[in-house]
Amino acid sequence: MLLEKIAKENDIKKIKKEDYTALAEEIRQFLIEKISVTGGHLGSNLGAVELTMALHLSLDLPNDKIIWDVGHQAYTHKLLTGRREGFAMLRKYGGMSGFPKRKESECDCFDTGHSSTSISAGLGLVKARDLLGEQRTIISVIGDGSLTGGMAYEALNNAAQLKTNFIIILNDNNMSISENVGGVSKYLNNIRTANGYLDLKEGVYNALQNVPRGERIVKSIRRAKSSVKHLVIPGMFFEDMGVTYLGPVDGHNVEAMMKVIREAKRCKNAVLIHAITEKGKGFAPAERHPARFHGTEPFDVETGLPANPKTAPNYTDVFSTVMTKLGARDEKVAAITAAMPDGTGLKRFRNLYPERFFDVGIAEQHAVTFAAGLAAGGMKPIVAVYSSFLQRAYDQILHDVCIQNLPVVFAVDRAGLVGSDGETHQGIFDLSYLSSIPGMHILAPKNKWELSDMLKFALALERPAAVRYPRGSAYDGLKEFRSPIELGKSEILYEEEDIVLVAAGSMVKTAVAVRKGLKDMGYACSLINARFVKPIDEEMIREMAQSHKLLVTMEENVASGGFGEKVREYMDSLHGTCRMLAVAIPDEYVEHGNVALLYQEVGIDADTVLKRIVTAYASACADTGARTGEGAGR
Amino acid sequence: MLLEKIAKENDIKKIKKEDYTALAEEIRQFLIEKISVTGGHLGSNLGAVELTMALHLSLDLPNDKIIWDVGHQAYTHKLLTGRREGFAMLRKYGGMSGFPKRKESECDCFDTGHSSTSISAGLGLVKARDLLGEQRTIISVIGDGSLTGGMAYEALNNAAQLKTNFIIILNDNNMSISENVGGVSKYLNNIRTANGYLDLKEGVYNALQNVPRGERIVKSIRRAKSSVKHLVIPGMFFEDMGVTYLGPVDGHNVEAMMKVIREAKRCKNAVLIHAITEKGKGFAPAERHPARFHGTEPFDVETGLPANPKTAPNYTDVFSTVMTKLGARDEKVAAITAAMPDGTGLKRFRNLYPERFFDVGIAEQHAVTFAAGLAAGGMKPIVAVYSSFLQRAYDQILHDVCIQNLPVVFAVDRAGLVGSDGETHQGIFDLSYLSSIPGMHILAPKNKWELSDMLKFALALERPAAVRYPRGSAYDGLKEFRSPIELGKSEILYEEEDIVLVAAGSMVKTAVAVRKGLKDMGYACSLINARFVKPIDEEMIREMAQSHKLLVTMEENVASGGFGEKVREYMDSLHGTCRMLAVAIPDEYVEHGNVALLYQEVGIDADTVLKRIVTAYASACADTGARTGEGAGR
Repeated sequence: MLLEKIAKENDIKKIKKEDYTALAEEIRQFLIEKISVTGGHLGSNLGAVELTMALHLSLDLPNDKIIWDVGHQAYTHKLLTGRREGFAMLRKYGGMSGFPKRKESECDCFDTGHSSTSISAGLGLVKARDLLGEQRTIISVIGDGSLTGGMAYEALNNAAQLKTNFIIILNDNNMSISENVGGVSKYLNNIRTANGYLDLKEGVYNALQNVPRGERIVKSIRRAKSSVKHLVIPGMFFEDMGVTYLGPVDGHNVEAMMKVIREAKRCKNAVLIHAITEKGKGFAPAERHPARFHGTEPFDVETGLPANPKTAPNYTDVFSTVMTKLGARDEKVAAITAAMPDGTGLKRFRNLYPERFFDVGIAEQHAVTFAAGLAAGGMKPIVAVYSSFLQRAYDQILHDVCIQNLPVVFAVDRAGLVGSDGETHQGIFDLSYLSSIPGMHILAPKNKWELSDMLKFALALERPAAVRYPRGSAYDGLKEFRSPIELGKSEILYEEEDIVLVAAGSMVKTAVAVRKGLKDMGYACSLINARFVKPIDEEMIREMAQSHKLLVTMEENVASGGFGEKVREYMDSLHGTCRMLAVAIPDEYVEHGNVALLYQEVGIDADTVLKRIVTAYASACADTGARTGEGAGR
Repeated sequence: MLLEKIAKENDIKKIKKEDYTALAEEIRQFLIEKISVTGGHLGSNLGAVELTMALHLSLDLPNDKIIWDVGHQAYTHKLLTGRREGFAMLRKYGGMSGFPKRKESECDCFDTGHSSTSISAGLGLVKARDLLGEQRTIISVIGDGSLTGGMAYEALNNAAQLKTNFIIILNDNNMSISENVGGVSKYLNNIRTANGYLDLKEGVYNALQNVPRGERIVKSIRRAKSSVKHLVIPGMFFEDMGVTYLGPVDGHNVEAMMKVIREAKRCKNAVLIHAITEKGKGFAPAERHPARFHGTEPFDVETGLPANPKTAPNYTDVFSTVMTKLGARDEKVAAITAAMPDGTGLKRFRNLYPERFFDVGIAEQHAVTFAAGLAAGGMKPIVAVYSSFLQRAYDQILHDVCIQNLPVVFAVDRAGLVGSDGETHQGIFDLSYLSSIPGMHILAPKNKWELSDMLKFALALERPAAVRYPRGSAYDGLKEFRSPIELGKSEILYEEEDIVLVAAGSMVKTAVAVRKGLKDMGYACSLINARFVKPIDEEMIREMAQSHKLLVTMEENVASGGFGEKVREYMDSLHGTCRMLAVAIPDEYVEHGNVALLYQEVGIDADTVLKRIVTAYASACADTGARTGEGAGR
């Protein structure tokens, strides 16, 4: 086995040329086998095998640097840098990350996760290299999908000024996670499919040389703006920006890739290598269904079918169904996604109402302001987006939607701990960043029926609103509670005394378990479904604070700026005796792993919460006595 | 006077062609005269006079829509839509905004303020128009500077797919606020300066027609990728994306502009008109010093000199001086700005250390991740940026800087109320959005010396850190207090009893006045300079809570997610008897106006704070008694 010869970086250089194809095949089999067990990103990694081999054959790691845009295509890179054993625990708690991590290997020079950052980071490393007088090759590898993100363009615009070497490899598989969209995508596609450039080049040159004024024309063209290049070289879009374009080249041909990398290294400026690859290459099911095998659960290698077929619908499924209904009911309803029609569940809406469906590419900023424009024009847009990706559009929500109080609804999926994708993808900040924005309304459903009710409510509200819901199976408990949603009003599920749990969204399910535990231990316990994180239900809090000794807020979000802080501020203004405990995620990034384990890790699982409540309640009772005694004595 | 004939939108159509030049001249004189008194954006407005006239002559407002990117160039638009009288109170409290505002006029269809949003918003309005079956022309007007923002590109990429009319006017003055940077800028410049395109076009066509294989070549080129356009038409960068390019055209020629707008209206897709204009046109001082007259204070029309010359240095000046020292002391120090070398005070650093100075264009996202790359490469980058613009890079700070714990320092200028620019520019969210990010350190200086100390401290910390300071004169009081900055430690200025003020940054100055008022009224009052908003100084809070009856936090930031909420959470965990009052900006957008008036408006001026404290203190004393009595009776 060739792979066994590769124990660390640069070992690949021991492999003979004639074995490259065999090694690529071994890597593919390894990845398919491992990912079929652990789950993970398959398609993008199968597409980048030869490209990564060529990079490792051409570079000297860790001195040279590779920045992997998005980062989920770096499995071969991990394999070739001594992390073969890590695949057994890929994306598991305590195991190897599915993304590049500086703390995992010296060969990972920059952490990635979100899209379109690699050219910016690479350019920073290039400038640092030059200023510190170091010698190294720096290469950013970016997909064609990531190129639809504005950041990539901001960075390209800057890279154009470089007078020193910086290599960008455009890994172009005509797919990001789903199909690509937009002018640039079409443009790249034209390059991919066009034939005969070289012929044309020869033809035009010859034609111009052979006519009386031809030579003069060629010269004057060159002088004016070297426009001959326009005629004969693909990639003028990049050349116009000032970045040298090399390609297109077959990204599955190791030696061709090595050759073009050699060529690129000689450039004294920013150079883009346009490599054409196929997502999922070498695994038929992934080639046929690239979106499904982008990020996959464990699967059967023979059939490509999921090893553990999903039984219960998740919140995304519920959202998907609601959207088709909302779309049917009101022709003004439009849906927007930033390159995630599958992930966000908008595919059915797209199929039913293609003219009101908008996939804008990996472009959350544009998605939000575009939605603001739709709303200003009289439509009712719903932006479906993952919590961690919406971070990209904080300013647009604040500046373009909320200042104008425009009726844009945000369907914030993957809100809370997402699990195996880890730190970069945890959706644990949205309650904070959305709460800071005046005019925003934030809702979180307790179960699948409430998600449906809340989306309808948010749409009818005709003001900025976000409905946030987690990854994974939709909770189908508490079916008996389905009072109508009212603006800023919570829902009382159980009313007793002593302790009151006020839980937001996904934490209602946990609160049910906590309450059961408390009841079993003999405590009286009320349970409130907060429904609104902004505005908070002050009336409910006031009443609960009067009738209970301890009020516990529960949220799947960081504490800073979250639901608990808002409730606490109001509680304090009451100057009552009811104590408060805020259950939230502490001020730290949360790594990858099984969500249930992560809940324990951050202390928001039912057991931990139960223990904290018991302690806090005891302290509240003791302290009320102590404090009143103390106070009386002053 | 021609302007007098224009009382409302479309009145301009009554002006005769031969009077266009005279009208433009009148408008310029009007703007210069008014802005010289009120202050405001001068250069960009003088540059857009004819362009705006052409738009109003070509369109039917308010049915047709104009979206003004950034919005500070819309003065002529306001003048032509019945808002002449408004200029007396331009940017004043209660007066006319310096930006387009939907609530101000039906002719303002979309509020702007931050850069690069207009194509997204316009595209939204276009889609809404088509879906709702309406007839109207929609035009986004965007500057060449705004085109360096990634959002604009994300939107262009989408606009390329349109099969319906959408007009984008590129108002190209080769300047944003300062000089432009990057590949696209260079590209546009090439178009501007190239001559003889039409000649070339004819020449090449003729040449190709006249040779044996010529015609076939022309045909095959067209078929392959219509590359002839590349050869002869400027603007292929846009055409490659799928947007029709018209121009360049003289943006100061009303009739030429009207002609090209007519042409553009006939297109059944997205079309970009490239208009060349001159910033500051018609006012010699502004032509000579475009950056100085971008946004100007009142000035003398004869000389162009400031009417009220600045006497005291502002925080930006202090930052500017410190940066030159830091740059001299350590060659690893680099400075980054997103198109604001003047505004942020980095000009001197640029002149001294050009190789370590980076102006990345209006591209905050890239600025931050580029800085992260520099830091990962061993440099010590300082990103100087306005608070409200940094909102654009929330995800990059969280995802690219802080997850990796990279030593990037953010010099957050204009933090707090900025005054006349209004809602879009108030820097009142940074404490919230930065606080939500694990690993971030947030500092705020009490006076000019402390800004210097904090910048040095932040740089030496080698972790992510933000130093935030306000617009306007640097406070030079409390000079006698200058203890060394220690991580997470506040500074005790005055220690007494009863009431303790814990003020962050700019509010220390206010707190000094509040304390004086309290002392005059006979209260004992301690004063703490918080220094750190994150992490908060728990030890200080614990001690102060033990020795005082009321703790007052003071911050120039919205309450949600701010300093007060963090202190309150900790205070609550102490279960002490000390009450807390959090002084912060309420949950609302703050309009334009004089900063002193705005302080009153939002209730963070010394008088209002004083009154609130007196009430809260009385309540605390009364309640402590009442509560202990009540408690004892239970």
